[in-house]
Amino acid sequence: MNASVSSRPFATQGPVLIVGSGLLGASLGLALQAGGVEVLLRDTSPTALRLAQDIGAGIPCVDAAGVEPRLVVVAAPPDVADVCVVEALREFPTACVTDVASVKSAVVEGILAAAVDDPRLACRYVGSHPMAGRERSGAGGADADLFCGRPWVVVAHPDSDPEAVVAVRTLATDVGALPIEMDAVTHDESVALVSHVPQLVSSLLAARLVEARGETLGLAGQGLRDTTRIAASDPRLWTAILAGNAAPVVGVLEQLQGDLDELLTYLRVAVERGPLRGGSVGAVSRVMRAGNAGVARIPGKHGGAPRRYAELEVLIPDQPGELGRLFGELGEIGVNIEDLVLEHSAGQPVGLARLSLDPLRLADAEAELQRRGWRLLTHGV
Amino acid sequence: MNASVSSRPFATQGPVLIVGSGLLGASLGLALQAGGVEVLLRDTSPTALRLAQDIGAGIPCVDAAGVEPRLVVVAAPPDVADVCVVEALREFPTACVTDVASVKSAVVEGILAAAVDDPRLACRYVGSHPMAGRERSGAGGADADLFCGRPWVVVAHPDSDPEAVVAVRTLATDVGALPIEMDAVTHDESVALVSHVPQLVSSLLAARLVEARGETLGLAGQGLRDTTRIAASDPRLWTAILAGNAAPVVGVLEQLQGDLDELLTYLRVAVERGPLRGGSVGAVSRVMRAGNAGVARIPGKHGGAPRRYAELEVLIPDQPGELGRLFGELGEIGVNIEDLVLEHSAGQPVGLARLSLDPLRLADAEAELQRRGWRLLTHGV
Repeated sequence: MNASVSSRPFATQGPVLIVGSGLLGASLGLALQAGGVEVLLRDTSPTALRLAQDIGAGIPCVDAAGVEPRLVVVAAPPDVADVCVVEALREFPTACVTDVASVKSAVVEGILAAAVDDPRLACRYVGSHPMAGRERSGAGGADADLFCGRPWVVVAHPDSDPEAVVAVRTLATDVGALPIEMDAVTHDESVALVSHVPQLVSSLLAARLVEARGETLGLAGQGLRDTTRIAASDPRLWTAILAGNAAPVVGVLEQLQGDLDELLTYLRVAVERGPLRGGSVGAVSRVMRAGNAGVARIPGKHGGAPRRYAELEVLIPDQPGELGRLFGELGEIGVNIEDLVLEHSAGQPVGLARLSLDPLRLADAEAELQRRGWRLLTHGV
Repeated sequence: MNASVSSRPFATQGPVLIVGSGLLGASLGLALQAGGVEVLLRDTSPTALRLAQDIGAGIPCVDAAGVEPRLVVVAAPPDVADVCVVEALREFPTACVTDVASVKSAVVEGILAAAVDDPRLACRYVGSHPMAGRERSGAGGADADLFCGRPWVVVAHPDSDPEAVVAVRTLATDVGALPIEMDAVTHDESVALVSHVPQLVSSLLAARLVEARGETLGLAGQGLRDTTRIAASDPRLWTAILAGNAAPVVGVLEQLQGDLDELLTYLRVAVERGPLRGGSVGAVSRVMRAGNAGVARIPGKHGGAPRRYAELEVLIPDQPGELGRLFGELGEIGVNIEDLVLEHSAGQPVGLARLSLDPLRLADAEAELQRRGWRLLTHGV
């Protein structure tokens, strides 16, 4: 295994005060303490604070007298993050302060407005958006590895001190995240495009299934499952996120609305005049080709350009150990699996594992697996 | 492994004539021949016919004199399927005839219109939609197991002979598919909802990425990847499918358009008047909750009601054999993996395997994996 987070020396200088001991705050506390950094915790809920303390996320900061945190991390809900940041900047006049809200313009605007009487106050603030989360909220879901391998957007404003930027970058690196610097507007537009609009579109699509007949849903395949998976996300969390980033979300959604309206106009002509008249074929083809071009731009594994992997499909009996045996044997053959999708059909006790692997290893993998008795379906590169 | 297709005795009575030797036709030929059924092939392209013959999908039917197929399967493109079916009904007056086009109303209407002078002609026709496909088209991508575990929709019209329905159901069962009977309108509406509209929505969403900045795309996570995966589908194939099913697609897309328009109206109010005014929070919450309700209706594995699985996340170093070792050890522990998603973050040489498993086995799996040195992230049920 790779070197664990806790075995690297941490460069973050403590004590670090974490305000808000939910999932992100408690996970950060666990990670920092594992790296030898002193962590103090605050929370408006004594119960939440106690839970975070009990799991080892840090020590409650009951009396601030004599406490001089080097860094304060506000891990409170987005709609109170700005107020908490300003309080921390005032209470600890030498500390750098960051927050972890998943929208950034609204937070920094609130801070600058509150600090208008003290122009130097906000210099010690730099925003963060660690792109990590869990289905389970609260300190009960906390994990020291929550940030491992995830992007951590570092959002300085024009007056942010360079030392504060370094402190936040260092924090991100210490807990295993990948710091990416971005201004607040770019951040908010970016997450609208890659996260918030996909969430809403997936929900809008899944909402069409509410009144579907059972026999219709019996025809559901992997495409429907993939496109609607995130529609199962938490409404409360997402309502708060989307309300805080409405303008960029509206920008992207309006473009999508324009494309949808145009497509529908052509499809209605096809219904009235037949499929081969009125330009509907061209309109559908344009949408499909634009989709091809867009999806090809999503970076592949390890941040490189998208790669074409060879695909191999293997029938998997539904019993413990069969998938393990497959992967064990692929390991013996020396083939690394780049991606895997498991597919099950309604009513069938057999699954299909769709593996992506290095095209240069495909022939070996096929020959070896067949020799070992696996049933393969056809493949494409 | 399960009993293979070829080890079961086939009930289909040959010879079977397959008209069109592309992916579906050649795969069907392979499967039938493996089951001991005599297969004859036709194709307007001599090259395609030769390729299908060479891979063992059947024998070219050059001279029809003396040939009496019991069943004719038209595996030609959807826009010529009706013509091919009528020709087959006329040429072989005792054969049952089916087609495999993924839209059904247009095909059956074409057949009934062409057979209007001979009311009994169409009685021997029953439509099919085997819900199987490949990235690779043509006989080169053919596989005898293509239909294994996939739904095969059997679409009779009001005058279809019961014997023809039985012949098509038997064909589906022989090649390992799951026959589902449905009328043409229900079929076309169903695939519009579970397949055609998700395809268009995924393409519309991915099209928004065409002009995105590289740094924005660097924040892409699993949600974006899942929702846009099928946007990489073949434009030519999908243009033909969608043109043949425009009316049901328009019906579903218009409802989605209505929901999107309403959401955008509220979000624009939020931009103008602030996030907490004008009802935008309620509108977003309604969309999210409807999405929750819709996705919960998709049948789970094995056709049962959706189940809640426990989730376990394991860090996987990017080297051959590590995923294999994980699955091998899960097999030793006796834990069956219900689903798996592999996630990679940009720039990180470590992956994250998100496993779904039986909640009753979660504690065992966690304890055993940790004992064996795996790094686990937190889980939720």
